[in-house]
Amino acid sequence: MSSDIHDVVMIGAGPSALTAAIYTTREDIETVLYEKAVIGGLAAITDVVDNYPGFPDGIEGMKLADQLHQQAVRFGAKIAFGDVSGLHRDGDSIVSIVDGQEVRSRAVLIATGSDYKKVSVPGEAEYYGRGVHYCATCDGAFYRDKKLVVIGGGNSAVQETIFLTRYASHIDLLVRSSLKASDVLQKALQPFVDSGQVTIHLETVPTEILANDTGVNRVKIKSNGTESEIETDGVFVFIGLKPNTDFLKDSGIELDEIGLIKTNQHLETSMSGVFASGDVRSGATMQIASAVGEGAAAALSIREYLDELKR
Amino acid sequence: MSSDIHDVVMIGAGPSALTAAIYTTREDIETVLYEKAVIGGLAAITDVVDNYPGFPDGIEGMKLADQLHQQAVRFGAKIAFGDVSGLHRDGDSIVSIVDGQEVRSRAVLIATGSDYKKVSVPGEAEYYGRGVHYCATCDGAFYRDKKLVVIGGGNSAVQETIFLTRYASHIDLLVRSSLKASDVLQKALQPFVDSGQVTIHLETVPTEILANDTGVNRVKIKSNGTESEIETDGVFVFIGLKPNTDFLKDSGIELDEIGLIKTNQHLETSMSGVFASGDVRSGATMQIASAVGEGAAAALSIREYLDELKR
Repeated sequence: MSSDIHDVVMIGAGPSALTAAIYTTREDIETVLYEKAVIGGLAAITDVVDNYPGFPDGIEGMKLADQLHQQAVRFGAKIAFGDVSGLHRDGDSIVSIVDGQEVRSRAVLIATGSDYKKVSVPGEAEYYGRGVHYCATCDGAFYRDKKLVVIGGGNSAVQETIFLTRYASHIDLLVRSSLKASDVLQKALQPFVDSGQVTIHLETVPTEILANDTGVNRVKIKSNGTESEIETDGVFVFIGLKPNTDFLKDSGIELDEIGLIKTNQHLETSMSGVFASGDVRSGATMQIASAVGEGAAAALSIREYLDELKR
Repeated sequence: MSSDIHDVVMIGAGPSALTAAIYTTREDIETVLYEKAVIGGLAAITDVVDNYPGFPDGIEGMKLADQLHQQAVRFGAKIAFGDVSGLHRDGDSIVSIVDGQEVRSRAVLIATGSDYKKVSVPGEAEYYGRGVHYCATCDGAFYRDKKLVVIGGGNSAVQETIFLTRYASHIDLLVRSSLKASDVLQKALQPFVDSGQVTIHLETVPTEILANDTGVNRVKIKSNGTESEIETDGVFVFIGLKPNTDFLKDSGIELDEIGLIKTNQHLETSMSGVFASGDVRSGATMQIASAVGEGAAAALSIREYLDELKR
């Protein structure tokens, strides 16, 4: 093997890639990770992670990210900042285009994650994770007997609104136009509307998220040209996922209808030697526990793939 | 819903079930776990877990198990000791036979794990995890530049021997009769035999694992009626897995050829409403990270299943 060819290039350095790197480097498989934004991914910018298994009282997202980072580095992972803009196969190796330069490796793991789509109003970025949320499974439990505003009108918005009724005393659902969710979901929502626990505001958009000293406390809305305010303890936004797969558009790697990467049972993509794990994978749960579990499984598949290359 | 019917019964209380319970109970899904042996499963009896993501310097298996346990209990999981001997569907509910009594639930998670098959010689149980190992991915890295004895002659024994050559200075491979591994694997092993890094002992069985003050230091062997000893720093046993699925034999739940449970992409078994995750699932990696990831994913599938029951 030429020293110009890495064993593995991992694209992204969130929990899934960091876990995969713990596994590969612990087995002396030379591994380099390219990250274009934050080491630790979405976990790093999450206030408190309450449901990552092993930390009974929860752990700050930043701290968890830092510990994953340290663990991967302890075993020898190299982490570099770099923006990957493309990927293709060349014989037995995979070429990643990193900051415009070709980087060769025997195998690649794509673990670039997905971002939640934003409504892009003032206050949204400012209170991210501290009053403004995108994952009901992760953060819903912080709102027992509190008031919530939910933004969105599709299947996920209605499904998560129904889910949040088990915590919230009242939910205002802001829908830009009309409800687009399936009939089954709309029917399932109806009893909560009838009981007054959920109020649906059609043709209504948020214009600003506001806070006082103790945190988010109201949302400015606009409906039929009229502005008003809704009091709330928190805001959940469910307007879709944006998988970080734009860089794959000319690669030939198969994506699903929303742009997540399709994989087989070994977490291999449609391009041999290229694997995917975590929130960028079709079927992802957007949970750190699952991202980490898939990272470990992907590393074992990569080891097997590299062993077979040598035979 | 009758109070006689649990929302979810989980069979087993290892890392996968405890994680699933963290997720379900945090979402107010009433959950009871039945464990017949050790809370924390194999993790609890592992000396040091080096590759569970989030603990940069490793963590004692017992401590990790304890923290998972605490976290599940914090959100309201009920954990009981009980031996489940059977499972069947009855209309909309699942009946588990626990210590001879019927326990009803809307959904069931099977997370009973798998055990490694034992050679059953003196010293094996005594030095479990402290010189006697069953997982090369987990514990191989503790044996850099050390001597090892590997026991087994099938595919996994040869594959893991090849893998362990990246750490160990020398490996004695003890094979009860002749090598049963595939030709491809035997061919891949040959260079290590030629170089002297691996010595194969055919028709040889271990009779005792011995230690001095600093740990395991030799293995007593018997070959053609003659006894002798091999010096070593550690022993790896690869003679197969024993999935904990005997209790399912009359359930109709589909198992694979070695007795692991088959699941679909939602981790649902062939019996509707019954899910499986972790080391008992066909395709399992025998890694805590993956068991935990699947536990989270299974919990989300269970939530969805329960929501649909209500519609």
